[in-house]
Amino acid sequence: MATKHILIVPGDGIGQEVTAEGKKILDRIAAKFGHTFTYDDALVGHAAIEATGDPLPAVTLEKMHKADAVLFGAVGHPKYDNDPSAKVRPEQGLLKMRKELGLYANLRPIKLFDELLEASSIKPEILRGADILFFRELTGDIYFGEKGRKNNGDTAFDIAEYSRFEVERIARKAFEAARTRRKKLCSVDKANVIETSRLWREVIQKIAPEYPDVEVEHQFVDATAMLLIKDPKRFDVVVTANLFGDILTDEASQIAGSMGMLASASIGDGTGVYEPIHGSAHDITGKGVANPLASILSAALLLDISFGMKAESDAVIEAVDKVLKAGFRTGDIADAKTPKDKILGTAAMGDQVLAQL
Amino acid sequence: MATKHILIVPGDGIGQEVTAEGKKILDRIAAKFGHTFTYDDALVGHAAIEATGDPLPAVTLEKMHKADAVLFGAVGHPKYDNDPSAKVRPEQGLLKMRKELGLYANLRPIKLFDELLEASSIKPEILRGADILFFRELTGDIYFGEKGRKNNGDTAFDIAEYSRFEVERIARKAFEAARTRRKKLCSVDKANVIETSRLWREVIQKIAPEYPDVEVEHQFVDATAMLLIKDPKRFDVVVTANLFGDILTDEASQIAGSMGMLASASIGDGTGVYEPIHGSAHDITGKGVANPLASILSAALLLDISFGMKAESDAVIEAVDKVLKAGFRTGDIADAKTPKDKILGTAAMGDQVLAQL
Ligand SMILES: CC(C)[C@H](C(=O)O)[C@@H](O)C(=O)O
Ligand SMILES: CC(C)[C@H](C(=O)O)[C@@H](O)C(=O)O
Repeated sequence: MATKHILIVPGDGIGQEVTAEGKKILDRIAAKFGHTFTYDDALVGHAAIEATGDPLPAVTLEKMHKADAVLFGAVGHPKYDNDPSAKVRPEQGLLKMRKELGLYANLRPIKLFDELLEASSIKPEILRGADILFFRELTGDIYFGEKGRKNNGDTAFDIAEYSRFEVERIARKAFEAARTRRKKLCSVDKANVIETSRLWREVIQKIAPEYPDVEVEHQFVDATAMLLIKDPKRFDVVVTANLFGDILTDEASQIAGSMGMLASASIGDGTGVYEPIHGSAHDITGKGVANPLASILSAALLLDISFGMKAESDAVIEAVDKVLKAGFRTGDIADAKTPKDKILGTAAMGDQVLAQL
Repeated sequence: MATKHILIVPGDGIGQEVTAEGKKILDRIAAKFGHTFTYDDALVGHAAIEATGDPLPAVTLEKMHKADAVLFGAVGHPKYDNDPSAKVRPEQGLLKMRKELGLYANLRPIKLFDELLEASSIKPEILRGADILFFRELTGDIYFGEKGRKNNGDTAFDIAEYSRFEVERIARKAFEAARTRRKKLCSVDKANVIETSRLWREVIQKIAPEYPDVEVEHQFVDATAMLLIKDPKRFDVVVTANLFGDILTDEASQIAGSMGMLASASIGDGTGVYEPIHGSAHDITGKGVANPLASILSAALLLDISFGMKAESDAVIEAVDKVLKAGFRTGDIADAKTPKDKILGTAAMGDQVLAQL
């Protein structure tokens, strides 16, 4: 019986719709397990720019620091995608949050629910049994180095940077997670070309002997992009830099059937942030068709990691499993054989999960 | 009836084995179509380091400049992968060659031979009809910017750079290719985070009106990594930066069934270089099992692009198609249903293609 304060930060686009479902589930868990969850909400991204001019207003950041955990939606707006020179952008809210909260480790579990074996574009026999846990470094790399223009704006540059300290702290989290799983760690880099990757590989090689029970392999990012699809079962824990992690985990969503199924946990020095890996998806915003399961599963990660509530977290995952077993699907995970009346919208899917709790 | 001089640069590992097959095919084409092809060879990569201490000896570069085209193998050696701090590395030979020859456009056609529909890990119904032409920028980006260490070696950095000029010249090649195909161009970047991508997007937007017949879309690299597997048929021509192109084309090899099927053409200011997109693959080197079709198809690209020999090029592709139709496979493209006696080694596969010419 615990009292916890959760900050809800839906952000933009379908972030609003799916986070509402995640919150519904947290509410039910509190009631069912006798906890007291209090909530507040805050603006980020385009929504925050519209209201305040700032993609991460100081009041949002302060609320994040004070909360026990944050349930986050998504940020982004097509307006900025068409205007690459826009100086204020929704994504800055997300990136600044990650930096300010010291969220250096982004965990992205890629696990296929049995019932979705047919929903993927990858063959079932290749997928069956795939279960990968990504550790994406989240506060360094080309995301946070100096960037700008020179030669009268005719040349653009971005600086990627990593320190030993930054690599080591994420690597240790990944090694420790590997110990509790199948004891395999794949470190992904591009050490044959870039210097940050060479440092990355050096650090992994240096600390590996401290984890003699974990089998370590190094893969180049290009080869990994291929192997994830060719043979996803060969991976257990994967650890990689910010940019490579961004690309590879979106790709890996195909292993789980749909991006709409993937949750993530961003952890580090302070408050943990939990969010779907999908974006704001303005093409489907307002239609009530977005898959809320990534937000609901993010809530499950929140319960487990930030609150140490393993039973509560498992209850959520089990409820999702039951809903899928009962044949309910959102559009993104439906296949040709799904009966029309089992294809649900966002809120109806949330309600089905609720009904199982 | 033409006289052409071809430089053969097998490089390392299976580069040696597969390039020999590519050359065999070029020889046969010369005889069949009445051309005179003369050959020379040269060292690169680990082989060149062993012999001369230099991954791209001056004599190799000079021979490349003088040749009408280069058939290239692969570079790399596990020795360097385990030693991220090695100062002299095989890949430097490849990168320096690209830079010195001004090979700024790397064309990677991703086309599935009908017969290989079952060889891929992706479902046949997703794959059928997929046909993508990648234009990967090859002489800029994080590959060629300044890189190094600071803070007593505790911090590593890499600088990514692009100028308008560099983006525009590759973009124009891609727009022109789209015109001759299905008239769709997808430009891939990460303009929501990095500055080189913002410049990239600006340039594409600026020149797009000059190609009103081409439908342009912009995608983020993470979304593209997902979409390539989810729905490969949506892509026609894809243009992207060096690093993103490296990752996405390796991933896209799964669309073509195997990395062992993928050829590439690197073109620019001078001599064109043709090479498989696979690497030196030391795990299978010397076993005679590598798939030579990527090298043979690279020879086909060489004939078409550097020599303007379209009929000759088509003859090679047709021969490969017939061999696949006859059921012959190397290990990488065999499936459970392939009879054992149809699984061929490198040279035997080359001979089958030869027999069809
Ligand atoms: C929106 C964008 C800045 C972000 C990223 O690149 O990190 C997103 O793609 C993600 O993966 O969380
Ligand atoms: C070997 C390596 C340097 C090279 C690259 O990254 O360009 C390779 O992966 C390729 O795609 O040609």
